[in-house]
Amino acid sequence: MIYLDNAATTFPKPKEVYNRVYEVMTKYCANPGRSGHAMALEAGRIIYDSREIVANFFNIEDPMNIAFTSNASEALNMGIKGFLEKGDHVITTTMEHNSILRPLTTLKDRGIIELTIVECDKEGSLDLNKVEDAIQDNTKLIVTTHASNVAGTIFPVEEIGKLAHSRDIRYMVDGAQTAGAYDIDVKKMKIDILGFAGHKSLLGPQGTGGLYVNPEIQLNTIKEGGTGSQSALLTQPEMMPDRLETGTPNTPGIAGLAAGIEYINKIGIDKIRADEEKLAEKFISELRKNDLINIYGPEDFSKRVPVVSINIGEEDSSEIGYILNSAFEIYTRPGLHCAPLAHKTLGTFEQGTVRFSFGAFNTEDEIDKCIDAINEICESVV
Amino acid sequence: MIYLDNAATTFPKPKEVYNRVYEVMTKYCANPGRSGHAMALEAGRIIYDSREIVANFFNIEDPMNIAFTSNASEALNMGIKGFLEKGDHVITTTMEHNSILRPLTTLKDRGIIELTIVECDKEGSLDLNKVEDAIQDNTKLIVTTHASNVAGTIFPVEEIGKLAHSRDIRYMVDGAQTAGAYDIDVKKMKIDILGFAGHKSLLGPQGTGGLYVNPEIQLNTIKEGGTGSQSALLTQPEMMPDRLETGTPNTPGIAGLAAGIEYINKIGIDKIRADEEKLAEKFISELRKNDLINIYGPEDFSKRVPVVSINIGEEDSSEIGYILNSAFEIYTRPGLHCAPLAHKTLGTFEQGTVRFSFGAFNTEDEIDKCIDAINEICESVV
Repeated sequence: MIYLDNAATTFPKPKEVYNRVYEVMTKYCANPGRSGHAMALEAGRIIYDSREIVANFFNIEDPMNIAFTSNASEALNMGIKGFLEKGDHVITTTMEHNSILRPLTTLKDRGIIELTIVECDKEGSLDLNKVEDAIQDNTKLIVTTHASNVAGTIFPVEEIGKLAHSRDIRYMVDGAQTAGAYDIDVKKMKIDILGFAGHKSLLGPQGTGGLYVNPEIQLNTIKEGGTGSQSALLTQPEMMPDRLETGTPNTPGIAGLAAGIEYINKIGIDKIRADEEKLAEKFISELRKNDLINIYGPEDFSKRVPVVSINIGEEDSSEIGYILNSAFEIYTRPGLHCAPLAHKTLGTFEQGTVRFSFGAFNTEDEIDKCIDAINEICESVV
Repeated sequence: MIYLDNAATTFPKPKEVYNRVYEVMTKYCANPGRSGHAMALEAGRIIYDSREIVANFFNIEDPMNIAFTSNASEALNMGIKGFLEKGDHVITTTMEHNSILRPLTTLKDRGIIELTIVECDKEGSLDLNKVEDAIQDNTKLIVTTHASNVAGTIFPVEEIGKLAHSRDIRYMVDGAQTAGAYDIDVKKMKIDILGFAGHKSLLGPQGTGGLYVNPEIQLNTIKEGGTGSQSALLTQPEMMPDRLETGTPNTPGIAGLAAGIEYINKIGIDKIRADEEKLAEKFISELRKNDLINIYGPEDFSKRVPVVSINIGEEDSSEIGYILNSAFEIYTRPGLHCAPLAHKTLGTFEQGTVRFSFGAFNTEDEIDKCIDAINEICESVV
């Protein structure tokens, strides 16, 4: 089995992650922040330590400005709906995932916001001038991904952040595809709101994610409830992270996420990224030799993350994904990847693409087998 | 160590739960519903099987009407905010947890709903006539807990369900304190919306919970995003459970929740409940002999779940909780338990209470030690 669906969720995880989840479940899993007994305090410490590890990783000053969530989609919804108010204008792009497009469309359809979706080019790249041109007097937020989950295109987040702040607009980033493999520095990049997945390149377990919020911003809530703090109040506490963390947290999951980040820190994010990029570059370089294969996204390797979408001639992407799975035990993801406008931008809305996404545990041997498999399929379809 | 904080989260879990979480994490943890490869399909099957196990457990006809959530609070928010619309009137009670009171108060403060909070009596019991008296022409929903997380008081859910349906009102139940130990039958009890925690009496891991929605009801969403289905749509799919399940699910957690329910089915919910009740009855009976101790909740054992709130004279509940932890290694939860109006109802808003909550793995010996400890503390404070 060759797992190349790491953009959906990374597999496997470091054994340290599995072991930490198991250890916390079996030894320390009281309810953090909800009592004063020793095990609840220990669970609280585990959560706090994890918050610190995340904060250091993204250059976030105060760990308390991070809320843990169940996945990136939840974090992005909390950011978008918590920040935007009646009459606000938002700018986003055609390369976004549905976890950005659907909440924004919902707010627009409910008559709450105005929305501009800036069209990217055929490589999935964003023209900063188009973003600037879209700015209105009531523009309150620019939301973009850090990298496309379809074409791998890297967005110029630092430049977008600079532009946003120069116009007194807040900047929100979807870090689902990059957090853990590409540097994210909320200060340097002027990111006001960052949503991230725990179970992708951060190598944590499923059921984890998080949201960073600039302390100058007080988000409205989409969920309220037990926080273990200010229990006498019938309204949600104002202080972070309690404001955004409602109900019993996923203590073992959060501990596992921290273990994933510690693993990355041990190996080095630069080394992990370089290894993944090397695999992607070999993969793309070899496939470029075959005329039957269309490869999407930037030509320039420095402008892309190791997520590679391809098609074989006019063949349906699902069919190719099916053959890769059944004949070669190669696990990819065909289709639209929850990003319909990205496929319209790339010109692949009808056909979809077969997506190969590389992770920290893939090997060159696996990539060689994968290249052979694709060339073999090409021969059979011509 | 004696763990008596099971109403916050149960500890330990059956070893089958730990093992299942570990097994799914290490072997099958692709992204369910998001691709067609073998491991993603297996993850999808695990989620579907878990949905079936939950459906059978609550007598829910179609498993697809259950959405998995990260905890009960999230489920309750999704139910409340998804169902209620501008101008609706809601009835709830003073015994509710903040996971009901805070979202309802938020909707009221935002000018969306009218809210009546029916006062319960000193035992925490609900008078059905008061609920009936509170019904208005625009009453759309009655929301109650199944049992109080402070006083243990059981609510007459079947009667409330009957009343609601006779007046064409929908009924929503917070099953956080009962699911897994007390029978919940959504048909018999006429429950239209049920929120439940996975990590309490259902014996699943933290990070799990769920929401059942009567198929006649289409909830609005509080989160939208990737569902792996109808990816071409910029709006959330209408079909359940995709409508309410956004982003990558917690596959190992959900599998662990199913393992918890299977453990309950193996031992028998009636036996687990009887054992827990026996411990609570012994505990209460012994403490009643000590005049210094105030015990809250119903006198009648048949009207309560094994959650027992007490105070020692006028002593601060946090102080007693602290002594129990530090001198006896007995883990309880003092304070307000995220249920401020319940404490006002019981007359314990200033003092809080020390809560002892019993679980499937507590033993009579532990209860004996706990009784001795409390009596010893009583002697030291007089």
